[in-house]
Amino acid sequence: MRVAVLGLGAMGAPMARNIHAAGHELCVFNRTRERALPFATLGATIAETPAAAARGAAVLLVNVSDTPDVTGMLFAPGSGAVEGLSAGSLVIDCSTIAPAAARAHAARLAEHGIGCVDAPVSGGPEGAARGTLAIMCGATTADFERALPILKLLGQRIVHVGPPGAGQIAKAVNQVVIAGTYQALAEGLALAAGLGADATRVLDAISAGAARSWVLENRAGNMLRDDYPAGFRMKLHRKDLRIALEEAERAGVRIPLTELVAACEDRLIAAGLGDADVSALARAVREDAHLPPGPFPHSETP
Amino acid sequence: MRVAVLGLGAMGAPMARNIHAAGHELCVFNRTRERALPFATLGATIAETPAAAARGAAVLLVNVSDTPDVTGMLFAPGSGAVEGLSAGSLVIDCSTIAPAAARAHAARLAEHGIGCVDAPVSGGPEGAARGTLAIMCGATTADFERALPILKLLGQRIVHVGPPGAGQIAKAVNQVVIAGTYQALAEGLALAAGLGADATRVLDAISAGAARSWVLENRAGNMLRDDYPAGFRMKLHRKDLRIALEEAERAGVRIPLTELVAACEDRLIAAGLGDADVSALARAVREDAHLPPGPFPHSETP
Repeated sequence: MRVAVLGLGAMGAPMARNIHAAGHELCVFNRTRERALPFATLGATIAETPAAAARGAAVLLVNVSDTPDVTGMLFAPGSGAVEGLSAGSLVIDCSTIAPAAARAHAARLAEHGIGCVDAPVSGGPEGAARGTLAIMCGATTADFERALPILKLLGQRIVHVGPPGAGQIAKAVNQVVIAGTYQALAEGLALAAGLGADATRVLDAISAGAARSWVLENRAGNMLRDDYPAGFRMKLHRKDLRIALEEAERAGVRIPLTELVAACEDRLIAAGLGDADVSALARAVREDAHLPPGPFPHSETP
Repeated sequence: MRVAVLGLGAMGAPMARNIHAAGHELCVFNRTRERALPFATLGATIAETPAAAARGAAVLLVNVSDTPDVTGMLFAPGSGAVEGLSAGSLVIDCSTIAPAAARAHAARLAEHGIGCVDAPVSGGPEGAARGTLAIMCGATTADFERALPILKLLGQRIVHVGPPGAGQIAKAVNQVVIAGTYQALAEGLALAAGLGADATRVLDAISAGAARSWVLENRAGNMLRDDYPAGFRMKLHRKDLRIALEEAERAGVRIPLTELVAACEDRLIAAGLGDADVSALARAVREDAHLPPGPFPHSETP
């Protein structure tokens, strides 16, 4: 099958590789052309516009940063993918964008007889490389089922959440839940440090019970060491929280914990931590807690 | 070994049963004498005062509600356990109390040559009955090791966190972390509901990734159904948060998420939900989010 991939960033590039490795004919487009060049050696076609990449593709995968990027890739006059796609083709948008925009994109594509699945992912570049992403899908049942053979090359847990936009709602909820879970862990560690306890032993004591979480199991170590190597970049998480907060406001839903975390992330990004892992949130929590900067007192790395 | 147990509530009673089942000679005291009567049929002695229960005991286990209760059990003039305990005996206090009080108790007992372990637990009445509690210990190494044979009858994950008081610090951290994790999940569900998504499917989509937690796995169902059967009672969690917030304030540590959750719990307890499971926090979150009361829209019980 001919598959076009728009956007070859940290997520899009490994996804394109997995699609190619499964034997599909690949055509790629990336705004910064240099990032597309390695795909030429794989035998992929490098297109000059999204429309050119889309021509003849049965499926078009999009993986860019934000709502306006996706809208431009799909609908920019003269160069948008919609000008190359045929009726009966299918767009799978793995970008994290506003649910309302995802619904609008699906409606505009439907006017051309083109299917659409909003399919934001979680699992990071490692998950993309291994093909083990979690994929949250919004689509009609027919479009979801057509997308499945490609989605199965990219991820392991693939859930049809609901109609167009529902995948983006799930992603927004995901980011809200992890935001609060990071804040909760950071406050716990700040309390332990403020009371003079060994954070490693405290975590050891609480990690098997109701305080257990992915965040505790996988990111507490970053917080203890005050070292936040690339994982999920804070500026991208903040972008996702902006979407969640805008959607919440539009729906009249107040989510105060998410507002609290977003404000902390704003300060940290302004201080130059936008490319640090989200767990760097502990720095803001520690500052607010009036603790000195540096690692949390702990006996060894858990 | 002769073991005295003070406090036969939802936690203390099953703990006493496990100690008796292991072949120890049991002497019990409970403020409401009726709760002690079933232990007479087991062959336990029912004492009229903590001091009487303590007489001849090698180990004395305390399991009551709050700091002043423990202080009274141990040190009330004329009836406190310290008046019955011999030098060389050991107090194991499984109550959740202030770390500073735990340190003070240990110091006062040490003046009489009595060892002390603060050993707050998590895992609830089910964990107490099955002997699978998590136990967070603050003690000297010698006292911790002396306590281990009894602790192993009560729990599975037994961690020596640090010196006296350190067990209580770990417990306070535990309650802070779970408070925020509940709030985070409730905000996520409120957002899903506000945006019209099916909460069951959203949870299905996010539960394998970074949003995963014990709270999500074990209490999201309560929130979806708006039904909060006995688990961990909110008024007890609020008591533990009071300890955490008082300790934080004393240490000059601000933990704003914990403050937020404590304020929500105050409202819910005032509204009569003190005996509901902590997951009833979703009611306050939903109210703040301007969502109608009742279950979150969802397709089936996860």
